[in-house]
This record gives sequence, structure tokens and C-alpha cells, in this order.
Amino acid sequence: MDILSKAKNIKDCIHMEIGEPDLEPPPSVYENLERAIKEKRQGYTPSLGIKELREKIAEHYYRFYGVEISPERIAITPGTSGAFTVAYTLLATDGDKIGLTDPSYPCYKNIARILGFEPLFINTKEENGYKLKPEEIPDNIKVLHISSPVNPTGAVYGKEEIKRIVEVCHEKGIYLISDEIYHGLIYEKPYTTALAFSDYVIVINGFSKFFCMPGFRIGWMILPERLVRKAEIIIQNMFISTPTLSQYAALGAFDYEYLNKIRETFKRRRDILYNGIKDFLDIKVHPEGAFYLWVKTERFHKDSLKLSKEILEKARVAVTPGVDFGENETKKYIRLSYTRREEELKEGIERLREFFSNYDSRK
Amino acid sequence: MDILSKAKNIKDCIHMEIGEPDLEPPPSVYENLERAIKEKRQGYTPSLGIKELREKIAEHYYRFYGVEISPERIAITPGTSGAFTVAYTLLATDGDKIGLTDPSYPCYKNIARILGFEPLFINTKEENGYKLKPEEIPDNIKVLHISSPVNPTGAVYGKEEIKRIVEVCHEKGIYLISDEIYHGLIYEKPYTTALAFSDYVIVINGFSKFFCMPGFRIGWMILPERLVRKAEIIIQNMFISTPTLSQYAALGAFDYEYLNKIRETFKRRRDILYNGIKDFLDIKVHPEGAFYLWVKTERFHKDSLKLSKEILEKARVAVTPGVDFGENETKKYIRLSYTRREEELKEGIERLREFFSNYDSRK
Repeated sequence: MDILSKAKNIKDCIHMEIGEPDLEPPPSVYENLERAIKEKRQGYTPSLGIKELREKIAEHYYRFYGVEISPERIAITPGTSGAFTVAYTLLATDGDKIGLTDPSYPCYKNIARILGFEPLFINTKEENGYKLKPEEIPDNIKVLHISSPVNPTGAVYGKEEIKRIVEVCHEKGIYLISDEIYHGLIYEKPYTTALAFSDYVIVINGFSKFFCMPGFRIGWMILPERLVRKAEIIIQNMFISTPTLSQYAALGAFDYEYLNKIRETFKRRRDILYNGIKDFLDIKVHPEGAFYLWVKTERFHKDSLKLSKEILEKARVAVTPGVDFGENETKKYIRLSYTRREEELKEGIERLREFFSNYDSRK
Repeated sequence: MDILSKAKNIKDCIHMEIGEPDLEPPPSVYENLERAIKEKRQGYTPSLGIKELREKIAEHYYRFYGVEISPERIAITPGTSGAFTVAYTLLATDGDKIGLTDPSYPCYKNIARILGFEPLFINTKEENGYKLKPEEIPDNIKVLHISSPVNPTGAVYGKEEIKRIVEVCHEKGIYLISDEIYHGLIYEKPYTTALAFSDYVIVINGFSKFFCMPGFRIGWMILPERLVRKAEIIIQNMFISTPTLSQYAALGAFDYEYLNKIRETFKRRRDILYNGIKDFLDIKVHPEGAFYLWVKTERFHKDSLKLSKEILEKARVAVTPGVDFGENETKKYIRLSYTRREEELKEGIERLREFFSNYDSRK
């Protein structure tokens, strides 16, 4: 946060700290939005969301993954953030441990703590591509919350890997939450949803990344049938419903031709950034999804928070220090986002190259 | 909920259960919305909300109440529901007691429980106009959460009453949350905000009632200065930010001439409903605000949930049974909303008149 607010005051700063796409959503999003405005859709919706959108999402699972899901199992939420709160509240009670991979999205642990649960970090190793091995799943957790692609590493779990994690969770009686918000932004690997292997997991996804609708604050969750009614009650109480216009706008989000172009744009940017820095910075695992690179900066500075401040001040490039993503190795890393135009990325690469080639690591 | 879903299946049902205005927001809301769409405002906003809206709200406090508030103390939230979560999380820790008036809005207790706090109901008496007396504030609560006007009773606290509650809370070291969501819908009485008497209370308000923007899911909270940064962190983690288009739309909400017409409409409806039923139903306290009547049905049936089902089935009028609003006397009451057109209200009155004149209370 410190770095973010400082970065705002630097006029020609290159922003590699931002986890928000700069691209526009499919044009049909705005067409649907305009129609909803004309129809004066200003009231609350049912807590689980409008029927049309739940049906569209079910259809998406069939078209995208070949998986059949009943719309009845889908709840629309105010962003994936809202879905995390609902999922934790559904599955855990006070003091329960929620297993998180280390590193992972900082809001997981923060929301867990706010709700009275205890996050338990499971370190994912460099040699395993920053991915959790099924045998590393501890026994003493109530819930395991994973994501693929992973923010901040860009790691993507393979089908077999997801399948084994689902199985081990079932064997151990651990609830599994699979955050799939970066699905669509996977660049080479075949991939699938955890729902392909079980109906007894909670899958969370939303419109903020691949669909480029962050400010609309809309996500969804797919629940085991027996949890739907409980989820409805939590949503009703905590949120009433998800913003109405956002729900109608999202009906236009599933334009696959357009979405493919979004994927291609991010893939090109990833290649530019990765190829541009890999000779002078340490990227231990090739990033396969999302829009982040996880860069090991230990050989320059043991504390990447301090290093990030130096990078901002001297190179005028804003990066995210790793510390907030976990508690094991994260101080040795920074995260770079490729959510800006190619020219900006190229300028950022040059600034980083110059900064690091002159960097005195002995200090 | 049961009644709500049954009511939907009755074709010519008169809806007196709905807590959502049927009127349109000021036209400038849609003008601002269209401008924001043209400007492609699709990204996240700062967690506390856009500066322009925080300034507008500060201005509103000056124009509406003559109270000066720094925009820096204002946080925009996803509805008042979002604000309750933030406020409870800010002020209480696990197991703390949150004092609520009985009756009060059911989501208070539900959100408190979801977050791990213990709601403590303080019964407000008929002879006190269903209002909390300062001397009734218990010592063993961490937070007192009041609202004025009160949902479901329509009771409105006077200036002196609010002032004394603020003072007693300060004396006892209890945090005060004042939910002012129905402000603007007070029909005769002079009124004020709790902020007129102290900077050390949390005031919650929003755009869903008086401003007629429920589906936009946008509210605000005014915080003591030293809590703003903590609130920002909670909002950042739990919500990221409030829907962007809703924030821009809300810039157009402060059209006082239009809003006066909204107030007049609801006042007229209140008079029609109140005068229409007061001869055959028991309304113990004249409702001064919001859009609800709190009707004591004890002499007809000791359990208003069962009575409500009978009313729905026989009179085809949907009403809200009192039970969910508290735990002391609420089974003796039903809540009627006047959120529908005058003709509908009149038809509802006739149906209720017929139902109750034939009602066999001895059964």
C-alpha cells in the first residue's frame, strides 16, 4: 500500500504492481448494460442472482470445460471477494484452520482472519513449480483453499494434479475451495475445473480478470447442492444481492471470439516481459497463466520490500514486494504484473535492466 | 422467506412485505451513470471510494443537517450491509456482545453472528414508543447499534433522545453505531444525525431507501478519524471497492427537489395505510418514518407467523411476520410496508378489513 500510494505521485512511473486488466470487456457487456438501464433495473435481485445469468454461467461450464452444472448450484456474488467470505463462513467455524498455499493471494488470509479463522500456510516449493503436492496437504485443516493459475507465481496445475488434490481432500475429509478467477488466462497448458472431478468442492470465479470487468464487482460460486440454501441465507444477510446492473451487464461477457483476443494480448505481454528480464533477473518457474511473474530477488537484497522501494525511487518502476503473499520465502521475491501496454512493458524492462546492472548487492 | 416465495406464486397478491422502494431515483442518477459508461469507468476505485462522491456526501451533511464532516472520514461501501460488516469488524472482537434494539432489522443480528459476535437484544417498550431509553443501555456490551427511523416500527428518535444515547455510550465506553438509512423518510419530526453530538460514533447510511437506488448496492459510513485507515484495510480485503458505476451514478442522487417529492409520496401512502387500518388493527405507536407499520396482532393470534400465512392464503396480502426482528415481543406483531402504489394499498386495506372482520380469534 505504501508503494502504491508513492507510485501515484511519480509522474512517469511504469506500473507493474497492478492486478487489474487494462483491456475493455466484450462490447456486448455494454449493450446489455444499456438495455438494463432502459428497462430501469434498479431493484434488488434474488440473493443468488438473476436466473438468466446463472443459466449463462452453467452454459459456460459446458462450452468451456464440457462439464454439466445445474444453474441451481450457482450463486452470484459481489466479486470473488464476496464469494470467499461466503465460502469460509459456510465451511468453517471459529478457530478452524484454513489451509492456504504459500504464496497465495493476500486477501485469503486477511478475510480468514477477519472472520475468526486461522490461516495455515503450506509452503510450495520452487522445485515443485510453486505447486502444492497432494502429499503435503496437512490433516489438521478444515478447508483447503487453492487457486490455479496462482497469483502471484503464474503457476498452473495440470488436470492430474487437480484431480489428486480433490481426491486427497475427500479422503481426509477436508473441504476444497478452488479459486479459478484466472481461468481463461492460461497460455499453453490444457486445463480444467475442479468440478470435473467432484460435485463436492466449491469453485469460485468471476468477471474481474479474463472478462475485464473489475469495477462491476461481480463473481460467482458453484456449490455442492446441499450448501446452496445456506449460501443463499449468508448472501441475503451480508450483501442482500449482487449489484443488479452488473448482473445484467455480465450476460454479455461470454463472447469467446473477443475473449480469445484478450488471452492472446496477455500471452504476448507475458512473452515480452519474461523474455525481456529473464537474462538479468531470476525467474525459477516459467509462468503459465494469470498476468504475473514471480521474480526471485534474493541475490540482490534479502528483503524485497526494501528493494521494491529502491526500484520505485531509482528506476521509477512500481513492483509488488512478495512479503504479503505468504510467510515462508516471500521476502525473497517481487511480483511483476503485465497488465499494461507493450510499450510500457518495454520501457519498464529497460529501466529494470539499468537498475539491476548498476545494483550493488554487497551492501 | 417462506412467505416471500409463496407470495410470488399468488397472481393477484398485494405486496406489503417488501422493504424496497418502488419509485425511481432522481433522473440525474441515470445521467451520471451514462456519462460514466461513456468514459468507460470499468476499473476498481480506491477502497474508500471516489473522491467526488465522498465530497458530495460531506456536502450533503452540511446541507441536510448543518453538520461539517471532512470527506476524509467517509468510506463508500457495498450497501449498508457492507458497512455493518466493516463496523462490527472494526469495533468488536470474537465473543463481544453487540447491543441491538428489539425489534430491529434482522440482518444486524445475523451479520453479528456470522462474524462471531453475540447479539444482545434490548427490548424497547410499547409505552416508550418502541425506543430505547438511555438508562436501559446495558454495561456489558462492546457496541450499541441503533437505527432511527426504526425498521420495523417506524419510530423516530428525537434530537434530545439521540444526544442522551450518545452521551451515555461515551460515559460507559460503549461504541455507538447509528444506522440512518431511513433518513429523509421522516414525515413530521425535526431530526438530526448522531454526528451532530459527537465525532466518535459510526454513522451508516446509503442510497437504497430515500434515494431509491437499492439495486446499485451502495452505502457509506462516517468514521472517527482514527478508524479510517483500519476501515480502508477491511474494505480492501473484503470488497476491494464498491461497484464503480454505482459510485458515479450516486453523484446524481442529491437532487433535493426530487427527493422531497419522494418523501411526500411515502408520507401520503403512510397516511392512507395508517388511516385505513387503524380502526380494525392495533397500531400502538404512530409511525413517524421509514415505510413500515408495526401492527400488534396478538388479540387475533398469539403467533404472527401462522397468522401471516393465513393472511396470505385467505386475503392474498403478503405481510412480514414479526418473529425475525427480535426475541421478546415480536411474535405478537406483523410488519406492513407501504412501498406500493396507493391503489394497491387501498385494495390491500379492503382485503385486510374483510379478513379480520371475519377472523375467529377464539381458535
